[in-house]
Amino acid sequence: MVRVGILKASGYGGGELLRLLAGHPQAQLAYVTSETYRGKSIADAFPGLKGVVDLPCEAFDLKAACESADCFFLTTSNGEAMKLAPSLLAAGKKVIDLSADFRFKSRETYEKWYEIEHQSPELLDEAAYGLPEINREAVMKARLVANPGCYVTASLLALLPLVSGKRVDPASLIVDAKSGVSGAGRSSFKLDYHFPELNESVRAYNIAGQHRHTPEIEQILSLAAGSKIILSFTPHLISITRGIHATCYADLSGRESTADLLALYSDFYSQAPFVVMLSEGEYPSTKSTFGSNFCQISLKVDERTNRVVVCSVLDNLVKGAAGQAVQNMNLMYGIEETAGLMLPAVFP
Amino acid sequence: MVRVGILKASGYGGGELLRLLAGHPQAQLAYVTSETYRGKSIADAFPGLKGVVDLPCEAFDLKAACESADCFFLTTSNGEAMKLAPSLLAAGKKVIDLSADFRFKSRETYEKWYEIEHQSPELLDEAAYGLPEINREAVMKARLVANPGCYVTASLLALLPLVSGKRVDPASLIVDAKSGVSGAGRSSFKLDYHFPELNESVRAYNIAGQHRHTPEIEQILSLAAGSKIILSFTPHLISITRGIHATCYADLSGRESTADLLALYSDFYSQAPFVVMLSEGEYPSTKSTFGSNFCQISLKVDERTNRVVVCSVLDNLVKGAAGQAVQNMNLMYGIEETAGLMLPAVFP
Amino acid sequence: MVRVGILKASGYGGGELLRLLAGHPQAQLAYVTSETYRGKSIADAFPGLKGVVDLPCEAFDLKAACESADCFFLTTSNGEAMKLAPSLLAAGKKVIDLSADFRFKSRETYEKWYEIEHQSPELLDEAAYGLPEINREAVMKARLVANPGCYVTASLLALLPLVSGKRVDPASLIVDAKSGVSGAGRSSFKLDYHFPELNESVRAYNIAGQHRHTPEIEQILSLAAGSKIILSFTPHLISITRGIHATCYADLSGRESTADLLALYSDFYSQAPFVVMLSEGEYPSTKSTFGSNFCQISLKVDERTNRVVVCSVLDNLVKGAAGQAVQNMNLMYGIEETAGLMLPAVFP
Amino acid sequence: MVRVGILKASGYGGGELLRLLAGHPQAQLAYVTSETYRGKSIADAFPGLKGVVDLPCEAFDLKAACESADCFFLTTSNGEAMKLAPSLLAAGKKVIDLSADFRFKSRETYEKWYEIEHQSPELLDEAAYGLPEINREAVMKARLVANPGCYVTASLLALLPLVSGKRVDPASLIVDAKSGVSGAGRSSFKLDYHFPELNESVRAYNIAGQHRHTPEIEQILSLAAGSKIILSFTPHLISITRGIHATCYADLSGRESTADLLALYSDFYSQAPFVVMLSEGEYPSTKSTFGSNFCQISLKVDERTNRVVVCSVLDNLVKGAAGQAVQNMNLMYGIEETAGLMLPAVFP
Repeated sequence: MVRVGILKASGYGGGELLRLLAGHPQAQLAYVTSETYRGKSIADAFPGLKGVVDLPCEAFDLKAACESADCFFLTTSNGEAMKLAPSLLAAGKKVIDLSADFRFKSRETYEKWYEIEHQSPELLDEAAYGLPEINREAVMKARLVANPGCYVTASLLALLPLVSGKRVDPASLIVDAKSGVSGAGRSSFKLDYHFPELNESVRAYNIAGQHRHTPEIEQILSLAAGSKIILSFTPHLISITRGIHATCYADLSGRESTADLLALYSDFYSQAPFVVMLSEGEYPSTKSTFGSNFCQISLKVDERTNRVVVCSVLDNLVKGAAGQAVQNMNLMYGIEETAGLMLPAVFP
Repeated sequence: MVRVGILKASGYGGGELLRLLAGHPQAQLAYVTSETYRGKSIADAFPGLKGVVDLPCEAFDLKAACESADCFFLTTSNGEAMKLAPSLLAAGKKVIDLSADFRFKSRETYEKWYEIEHQSPELLDEAAYGLPEINREAVMKARLVANPGCYVTASLLALLPLVSGKRVDPASLIVDAKSGVSGAGRSSFKLDYHFPELNESVRAYNIAGQHRHTPEIEQILSLAAGSKIILSFTPHLISITRGIHATCYADLSGRESTADLLALYSDFYSQAPFVVMLSEGEYPSTKSTFGSNFCQISLKVDERTNRVVVCSVLDNLVKGAAGQAVQNMNLMYGIEETAGLMLPAVFP
Repeated sequence: MVRVGILKASGYGGGELLRLLAGHPQAQLAYVTSETYRGKSIADAFPGLKGVVDLPCEAFDLKAACESADCFFLTTSNGEAMKLAPSLLAAGKKVIDLSADFRFKSRETYEKWYEIEHQSPELLDEAAYGLPEINREAVMKARLVANPGCYVTASLLALLPLVSGKRVDPASLIVDAKSGVSGAGRSSFKLDYHFPELNESVRAYNIAGQHRHTPEIEQILSLAAGSKIILSFTPHLISITRGIHATCYADLSGRESTADLLALYSDFYSQAPFVVMLSEGEYPSTKSTFGSNFCQISLKVDERTNRVVVCSVLDNLVKGAAGQAVQNMNLMYGIEETAGLMLPAVFP
Repeated sequence: MVRVGILKASGYGGGELLRLLAGHPQAQLAYVTSETYRGKSIADAFPGLKGVVDLPCEAFDLKAACESADCFFLTTSNGEAMKLAPSLLAAGKKVIDLSADFRFKSRETYEKWYEIEHQSPELLDEAAYGLPEINREAVMKARLVANPGCYVTASLLALLPLVSGKRVDPASLIVDAKSGVSGAGRSSFKLDYHFPELNESVRAYNIAGQHRHTPEIEQILSLAAGSKIILSFTPHLISITRGIHATCYADLSGRESTADLLALYSDFYSQAPFVVMLSEGEYPSTKSTFGSNFCQISLKVDERTNRVVVCSVLDNLVKGAAGQAVQNMNLMYGIEETAGLMLPAVFP
């Protein structure tokens, strides 16, 4: 049994970790913190946990934390994990960070996009980038895992086979992504997210490469391509709660059929239990991954323009956050990668 | 391991059974039927099952069914289970029927409200009414369980302690219920349920005692009261996918405080793992039971009118259908009542 | 042309007044205030006004206001109108207040429920209650109109014919009301209304007579009945943007048929252009009044319980607020009651 | 007064025409047909019309139609208008067709994409393409107007200034479009659009140039460019009722700033009352055009990739269908272009 601690358990990422770990056969919820719910049960933050989970919310204390748990999930704001991780690691604990603090190998890139001075730059090299589909070995050996962003996971899983396989012009990549509102987090209840303002709407934001997930996508794709990749990334806010749909466009380097590329993907993901490739003519719906850790992908070659269009969907809070984090925990502890995660989507 | 068969697995009740049983530690999905998806994988009916469940859809065949499975869940239309159950029972199988066919002790009541001639009236007495909170013993011994309706479960769990405890005027009961659209089923895609027609709306239907769940609520409450109860039941269709909220009104027989009645309920449900009583001043939201098998209940005495208002919420497809059915299966097989069902709600 | 001023134009009530008055043939938008958008165009508060309305947001100044406009709509918070109205009236202006400040004849009732000391109690008697369907004459002569609450309008239009006509037991009244979220206003963007928290949910709040609209409903019904009426009022929050559905229950005093009561209502509302009675068996949907000033009502007698169930629907921001306010303005200025308001619902 | 007939008034396009024309100062609803509601009031098809519009639904009869009305809106299925238009035109009537029948100059293109043999190819040349922003003069003189598709209007208004102005590489155009479900029409209530199946979801369909609106966009852009344009068009279905958001990508031919291009657009649309350009940094939301005839556009140059991203939003049933049709009617009859159409969006 892995004794688990969740630092800042009362946000959406924390809630999803609680949901998934409550049913995990080899993990035990042992320690949770929340400033807002300090002294109360975590089920006060998530009434749906009543009858299943009842843990008191603590104020973070290193000693108590280390006595209670072995593996820590950090769902703290950007800038916090970099302060917490060093002492947890020093105490022999393992850390999975769901924030951006350890996602970049380049301190400069992080500091430029997040406008936070990094407090633990010495850990950037060590941190394993927690996308098991391309980094399983490193995660298995890691003490510290940087869990990818939600947009990033959807975009990378859609584009990596093409880029790694050199099938597309790397200068032509465009990701048009649509996200549910839970991606904005729980503590961000500003007017923009007030129900009546947002309900029944679609809008873009941070267009033309201004979203912080852009450099994260570019970092990993560049590594895969072996050359620097710059792409267009456009996030959209859709009035649904959960789900990301990434629609990706790339100019083909040569002539390829849809069947060729589907074969490429099937091969690329042959060892990935949470990537589901759809048949030609099927289109993935975000609804098919609601609450599950799966990413569904379909693609089609447009012969008229010689472009390929790849669609990927996932649940931003599961494969895009907490589920992927649990998948990483499994790997870090030598547990079956799918343990606790073979939950089908909740449909309808 | 209980080998499970689901007859008509491609509807919403069937899908929910598949989701819950896929993760059940002591059940094995063994046999599913679907006319629509015959010869295809059940994951074609529910793309969210891809990667988790892959079973071929059969046309029903008694011999094949009985060789494959021991316990059968029937999510067939009203009028079908009465034809299927006798032969399954004769073959030594256990049957949990999610339709209305075996819910009534009175053949006349069934035939009047459902306008179907009953084909197996001899089983009506034997069938155990599958509301474990009041009928656990009978379910444990049953070969045939009639799983209650979704509105009915929400209404009964809200009203039974008051009625059993003779705290209210039985002539004063009113249930104002609000349901998500999945309660209408999957094969009923008529204009009324066309997305644009329904989205962003609330409306009542079958008012003034015309809904078929009315006599079912009345049957069980009458048994509990020891006298015939007639009530007002008003269903409403809300443009959400899942969830039932029952708001129940009753005139108090004497003076009672909210605290008195909360104590009554806590006592009544002390052995019920899936009923969660909320504290005074808390209000349950359907969202707190989305995807879970729990029913959350709160109540408040209005001293101005000497009425009590009881609110109960549940997920119509889980505690209102498939989850309750699995709970009944657990009891029928001597498995822990909560096995496979301690899933917290998916939130947000 | 009536020159119109809107004090606090940047809330939802203000936005709806702008939408309706922009197209009113005999009104001219002349003066709007907003602290939040001071110095900007009101179209910055409501981007959907771009191309139609472009007025600068002012800080309130009595002199400037009185020079610019003749009729003032106050959509200020409770407690503000009572300070603004006296000087506007003294300057010879007409005032339509959309807050609760002038809705109660009893200062004590107001102060008890709203916990605000009234600053202008001398105006309470004078203020006409702005429900034209029962108070047209008084509104026509008024300088000051108290525009009813949204829940109140839906409840009163549903119950007044029964209560006035003495057809029901006045002690038996129950109103179970469901509201969209815009009723909570625009400045109340707290966690409760954060999109992910609320989306896809139903919940009650302020049950057992704790909602402030309860005494307002009771005041008007008591006047109609000629005796003091106390009722049960339960508001519910539904995850839709606009719309109120009031489901009302009453024990019939004698035997009545649905047809009898439909005739009573048709007669009662024969002069009311915005009340639409539905035929027996039709159920109103909130969607049928989305964006319009109409209230649709249906009813049915339940012979089993000798109760009548009345359903009424309206748009909380139109007939429940801004539209009714414009209707009152029309009456106060001798304009056709329906001027600017014959907009059908936006469907779907 | 223009006497107006609507052929097939009971669909969503028909309903929207009824809503807009009911309030049009120079139009009179005179004749409506519906097979489904034949003999009933059109308000039975749209309960929100009750109290405003009450016209009997006819079966189409040429003589009766021509006696009653002068201008005909056809919202019939593809393949019907081509049969109806010739006789209406021969009788001296004007026709605005909302289907695809007269949108293509090339009979072959129409027949290939719609798989219908054209019955009136002789009218293809005469038909004016009803996008007033680029074709005002032709519409003013037309007897027959082909009203553009909804996706098409959003895409063209976003891309025309760039393409006409030769600012972008015509081989690089990508349109990623998101649509509400009402675009699917009212008679298409299949399982895909059953509320529970679709609610809370995003998915692409007809990707890689398979949607019929692709050749329509290409036809008009090619005319504007003076050379053949082929582009990538990807439609997405979003679980909202109304609204289209087109996100358009194009490689810039040279270096351009956002300000340069905003100036280009402002100039291009200087005479277009229904196109609203947003300032740099503002993003349009579909919600800002809900129920209105406006199209809002913003754009931004991405200097990293030298691409421009243009976002346009409109209501698919208004500027994307019925509103644009009324705008065309206004031009055809020499009425003020904005008459009856200066309705702000319904917000929230």
